[in-house]
Amino acid sequence: MPTAVGALAAEASAAAVAMERSPQQQQLQRTSGVGVPLPHAIEPIYLDYNATTPVFPEAAEAMRPFLLEGFGNPSSGHAYGRRTAAAVAAARASVAALVGAAGPDEVHFCGCGTEADAWAIEGAVFAARRRGAARPHVVTSAIEHPAVLATLAALEERGLACYTAVPVSAEGLVDPRTVAAAVRPGETVLVTVGSIQPIAEIAEVARAAGALMHTDAAQSIGKARGAGAGLLAQTLWVEVDVGRLGVDALTIVGHKFGAPKGMAALYIRRGVQLDSLLFGGGQEHGRRAGTESVLLIAGLGAAAEAAQRELPALASHMRATRAALAAALLSGLPPGAARVNGPADGARRLPNTLSVSLRGVDAGALLAGLGDRVAASAAAACHSAAGGAASHVLRAMGAADDADYARGALRLSTGRHTTAEEAARAAALIRAAAAEQNAEFAL
Amino acid sequence: MPTAVGALAAEASAAAVAMERSPQQQQLQRTSGVGVPLPHAIEPIYLDYNATTPVFPEAAEAMRPFLLEGFGNPSSGHAYGRRTAAAVAAARASVAALVGAAGPDEVHFCGCGTEADAWAIEGAVFAARRRGAARPHVVTSAIEHPAVLATLAALEERGLACYTAVPVSAEGLVDPRTVAAAVRPGETVLVTVGSIQPIAEIAEVARAAGALMHTDAAQSIGKARGAGAGLLAQTLWVEVDVGRLGVDALTIVGHKFGAPKGMAALYIRRGVQLDSLLFGGGQEHGRRAGTESVLLIAGLGAAAEAAQRELPALASHMRATRAALAAALLSGLPPGAARVNGPADGARRLPNTLSVSLRGVDAGALLAGLGDRVAASAAAACHSAAGGAASHVLRAMGAADDADYARGALRLSTGRHTTAEEAARAAALIRAAAAEQNAEFAL
Repeated sequence: MPTAVGALAAEASAAAVAMERSPQQQQLQRTSGVGVPLPHAIEPIYLDYNATTPVFPEAAEAMRPFLLEGFGNPSSGHAYGRRTAAAVAAARASVAALVGAAGPDEVHFCGCGTEADAWAIEGAVFAARRRGAARPHVVTSAIEHPAVLATLAALEERGLACYTAVPVSAEGLVDPRTVAAAVRPGETVLVTVGSIQPIAEIAEVARAAGALMHTDAAQSIGKARGAGAGLLAQTLWVEVDVGRLGVDALTIVGHKFGAPKGMAALYIRRGVQLDSLLFGGGQEHGRRAGTESVLLIAGLGAAAEAAQRELPALASHMRATRAALAAALLSGLPPGAARVNGPADGARRLPNTLSVSLRGVDAGALLAGLGDRVAASAAAACHSAAGGAASHVLRAMGAADDADYARGALRLSTGRHTTAEEAARAAALIRAAAAEQNAEFAL
Repeated sequence: MPTAVGALAAEASAAAVAMERSPQQQQLQRTSGVGVPLPHAIEPIYLDYNATTPVFPEAAEAMRPFLLEGFGNPSSGHAYGRRTAAAVAAARASVAALVGAAGPDEVHFCGCGTEADAWAIEGAVFAARRRGAARPHVVTSAIEHPAVLATLAALEERGLACYTAVPVSAEGLVDPRTVAAAVRPGETVLVTVGSIQPIAEIAEVARAAGALMHTDAAQSIGKARGAGAGLLAQTLWVEVDVGRLGVDALTIVGHKFGAPKGMAALYIRRGVQLDSLLFGGGQEHGRRAGTESVLLIAGLGAAAEAAQRELPALASHMRATRAALAAALLSGLPPGAARVNGPADGARRLPNTLSVSLRGVDAGALLAGLGDRVAASAAAACHSAAGGAASHVLRAMGAADDADYARGALRLSTGRHTTAEEAARAAALIRAAAAEQNAEFAL
């Protein structure tokens, strides 16, 4: 896909110019953590933000008071409980603001993105069964996270629901018309499609069919929020504003934007009927039982505040570091030596992610050899839950069809604390390592 | 129940003697955190260990490296991932050792006790349905935590299972013969009964009926582990050793023994068929999807190590502080002014818990007035998930039948960092506050 390579090269020079020229942006970077190196050692160079981000310093600071001293159970009526209940309420408000919720009552903390996805899906299915549906139908896409696809497969195997996974284009895009052909009015109770897609259009299709719309925004939150102006006009597809997206439920995963692992939230629009997944105590507006994980909730709240405060600086920093990475990695290559996976249109890609397949290269071996210098994912090798592009995604896009490239898929993802220097150095290291397998990559 | 009051008074003096006399125990206390005041201010006096414990200093220390620096996703193959994967493995081994598991492969981390309970129950139900059972049957008791009872109610309402909740005695005890009468051989797939009960005997009943046995050990872990000798012979009913208990699954809740909130584990005996609750990535031996909450797992591991290292010192410290509390609270009262809820036999009660109903006293009002000096639970008022005795428990025991005592139930629970001085001071404060409502309690 030389168009994508070309588009990224153009983006690289434009971003470099923008970074130099904009005093506004330089000011933003001075008053925020964007582009600021982490306070601790970060060797090997970390280019795996999509697997998990470093904990942002603000999130760690927000957690410190609850590491030891702030231990009360928020359900307790006494002073210890009131202190933690207040912290939970504050974090809930921050998360609600980040996604544009109507209020904190629409935000429900839970243990991980997998739980939030399962809740959205099972909640819609069991609510429909309660209303008399014998075998509710769900529409999803072939490239969803395993948390979505495996939950649907389990429900189908248990005879409790059935589902259709629509195919994607070679760029990994879901066509709303394909969803429209897949929904069954009166039978489809939920459409669940990940967020780097034309969600608003797909949500309209869902609504027209009388189905709820859910999106797993794990990879898009904290990467951009569309305000519809300037640079951000490019990022509409990765925006996370529940009103603009028109979704009924949305999965928020903290460790993808600076919060610690083990904390997520499910946005549920007011008035939407979703049955509970976990029953018992009256936590989370009576909808998700389980003692609140106060320490992590405090971290998620702080990360949400940082994400909201720093956009759009964060998105352009991601775009700039990715562009620097792409420029150094792809410059001067023979035609076809590298293929950039995903949409050619920059607006339809995550701003921080470079998924690239190197001809005649085994990416797993390459990264193993680079282990002490660069940390990234071999997209083709990773079958775990480490988030983002796993091989089923590239297969669904047809990107794994060509044997010359099938083992060479690298997923490089930058983030808030990636520096341009790190990006350039990592690219040079990857080129040198790739050249050991295929001389085309020699610098 | 004057027998219980008498038993506690006897225990108080015996414990005081034992604490003074045993050099071994004094040595244990010097080399452990048992009885050592927390490093931070602890006002009001905290007597609500059953709702949640303070985070133990060792757990906080173990978490610090993962607050900021140790951020890798354990599923990542690079150095960041390997570091956190190693921490998760070490914590898993500590938890396995604490409950006497055959190996770390039997321990599965998850987000909260509610999730662990739901997993055990739904896992058994759906495994049975996969084997052809149309409507699997579960036996439980009337005083289980809402996580158990509400999960069963939801499964029954959804037509996926049915259940029987056996009654308890006036002391809150489940009679294994009642369970034997409730199980339906060939239909009952699971017996789930909380751990301050004759679990080993109930497990035998379950096994004889071909059912699995699960116990929610949230309140017993870290309070005692029976070794069958000396002081510990008294604590057999609250021991947490999966081999001696003969259970197939056991819920471990970190924040009840010094770990942070938001982390739990489900022990599943090797070879036991329990379907998953959360599907997706391959974490937790492929049985519980979701990125590992490394920070909290590190805390749980350290808490498990402390609990194992410090028993039996911890159990006797709990017994001693509770005894000091009971002695000061109950001494010199007119007959019947206070009723101790629960078993008269000390071996059948948690060593740290004093559930007492004060005649003619509104416990909620009493605690509200004491809010800045003593933090405890009004057992009759708490309908939340704050753990332990909620009103359905006292009602099932018949302890809420007598109007003179129905609003006067206090749940006082001590723990590792409670000091004898705090216990005595809190008791005096409670007596004075109770006397304002009923002169019988005047000191």
